[in-house]
Amino acid sequence: MKKHRVAIVGYGNIGKYAVEAIKAAPDLELAGIVRRPESLNKPIPVELTGIPVVGDIRELEDVEVAILSTPTRLVEKYAREILSLGINTVDSFDIHEKIVDLRSSLDAAAKAGQATAVISAGWDPGTDSMIRSIMEFMLPQGLTYVNFGPGMSMGHSVAVKAISGVENALSITIPLGTGVHRRMVYVQIEKGADFEEIKQKVLTDPYFINDETHVFQVADVELLKDVGHGVVMERKGVSGKTHNQLLKYEMRINNPALTGQILVAAARASLKQKPGAYTMLEIPIIDFIYGEPEEIIRKLV
Amino acid sequence: MKKHRVAIVGYGNIGKYAVEAIKAAPDLELAGIVRRPESLNKPIPVELTGIPVVGDIRELEDVEVAILSTPTRLVEKYAREILSLGINTVDSFDIHEKIVDLRSSLDAAAKAGQATAVISAGWDPGTDSMIRSIMEFMLPQGLTYVNFGPGMSMGHSVAVKAISGVENALSITIPLGTGVHRRMVYVQIEKGADFEEIKQKVLTDPYFINDETHVFQVADVELLKDVGHGVVMERKGVSGKTHNQLLKYEMRINNPALTGQILVAAARASLKQKPGAYTMLEIPIIDFIYGEPEEIIRKLV
Repeated sequence: MKKHRVAIVGYGNIGKYAVEAIKAAPDLELAGIVRRPESLNKPIPVELTGIPVVGDIRELEDVEVAILSTPTRLVEKYAREILSLGINTVDSFDIHEKIVDLRSSLDAAAKAGQATAVISAGWDPGTDSMIRSIMEFMLPQGLTYVNFGPGMSMGHSVAVKAISGVENALSITIPLGTGVHRRMVYVQIEKGADFEEIKQKVLTDPYFINDETHVFQVADVELLKDVGHGVVMERKGVSGKTHNQLLKYEMRINNPALTGQILVAAARASLKQKPGAYTMLEIPIIDFIYGEPEEIIRKLV
Repeated sequence: MKKHRVAIVGYGNIGKYAVEAIKAAPDLELAGIVRRPESLNKPIPVELTGIPVVGDIRELEDVEVAILSTPTRLVEKYAREILSLGINTVDSFDIHEKIVDLRSSLDAAAKAGQATAVISAGWDPGTDSMIRSIMEFMLPQGLTYVNFGPGMSMGHSVAVKAISGVENALSITIPLGTGVHRRMVYVQIEKGADFEEIKQKVLTDPYFINDETHVFQVADVELLKDVGHGVVMERKGVSGKTHNQLLKYEMRINNPALTGQILVAAARASLKQKPGAYTMLEIPIIDFIYGEPEEIIRKLV
């Protein structure tokens, strides 16, 4: 069987885990890594021995899909460029309110390049969205609560790091139920900085002002880091006229490892779609799974 | 907006709940009920006042989809006939090992009739299959355990009722974890029958011989009935090379109400597919949900 060739664009945390997931996939092979020019001068990490590491995707051979593990804000630019080369893209773009816009932008680019884009293919947005949507048609009337954590929030951590006098920071999301969250913020301050002043800035920051927030000073933020995360989604609602139907989904996972794995499943699915851009809701579930359709149905339906 | 017209074939427990779900759907309307000739002589149930009740689907006007709430063994026959009329079908066929065969039989019939069939669209097989399959591509290596109950097992209850001397029977499935189940069997015996003899027949019946089974004599089985059911599905496995990823799905539901609702969502989805037969894994999730794609994505992704 000829394996499909996948490139990784951006070699941060998620890119590393995506490499592991590609190596574990029977139907895919790693075509190479695309890094920023400034990263190309660094020594090649040992796990990439023998794998092409380049500055431009056009330097890699026969790439069919590019997994974009770049920062979310760069996804649209990179995806449009790569789609115009006729190469599929998959991303884990996570700004919920801009997903519809990204979808129309990449849909046009994908159709022009005769390629496909699978967008927002992480766990939330991503697989959580798929399960939320299944819950929705099972119980069309009712309420869904999404509870995140315990786990690191990148967005909140970055917001604290941006405060002057902060050397390093970590914000942990704690689920209090019914979609209400507590923020536990750990701050390592610069020499001469005033912790109480920084604490007040955190508590009045738009990222934190609506949530119960606790701020602590610590000597070394790195010692606290753990990439585990969790979700509990609950829907209580109505099927037809029957109330009190109860659904619940829960996961406890290594966050970048799961994101890397989902991106790889989405890369596989991208190869089975017509040109255009798709969220995970718009692709049959079977397309994300390795194997022949009848075998998959026999095993999983 | 013109509503899509849906007929219900078979008016048992699931058919009744499917009627409620159609009435609650903004985009669908009930075209009528198809019943067996012997049921047509009975008085029409009050909830069907004003709704055509007929013996043949061709007597109903402009039917686009037929929901088959017939016994599972009759699904193939009815579906092939109705598909040949150019009418879509949806069913909750639940004999797991025969789903692939049903799919090829109905695929041929659907293509010949230029219609679509959505098969095995209940909760297991059905929405459980969708969630199992999402768990599978999130963690391609690992184990999934499916735990059913507490709830009535129709198949096991029927097996007990078939034993001579049994007037009525109920088998409840109790989950013991890791896919192991206990059977609690309640038997109402005929006058003069020997309970101990019946109990031995139950314990040695192929339906029960591999499970921990307890058999009780009761005066009135009907007083014990409750259509609530439950599922816990757990998968522990590996994303890429990262072990100990934990996923869990749980539901506590009115069984026929949920099945009726899922059949109605599948009826909606059937209208968006090309001719052929599909399991729920082969249809994008978004197609089961009422509304415009961009609104759905904004709300649920």
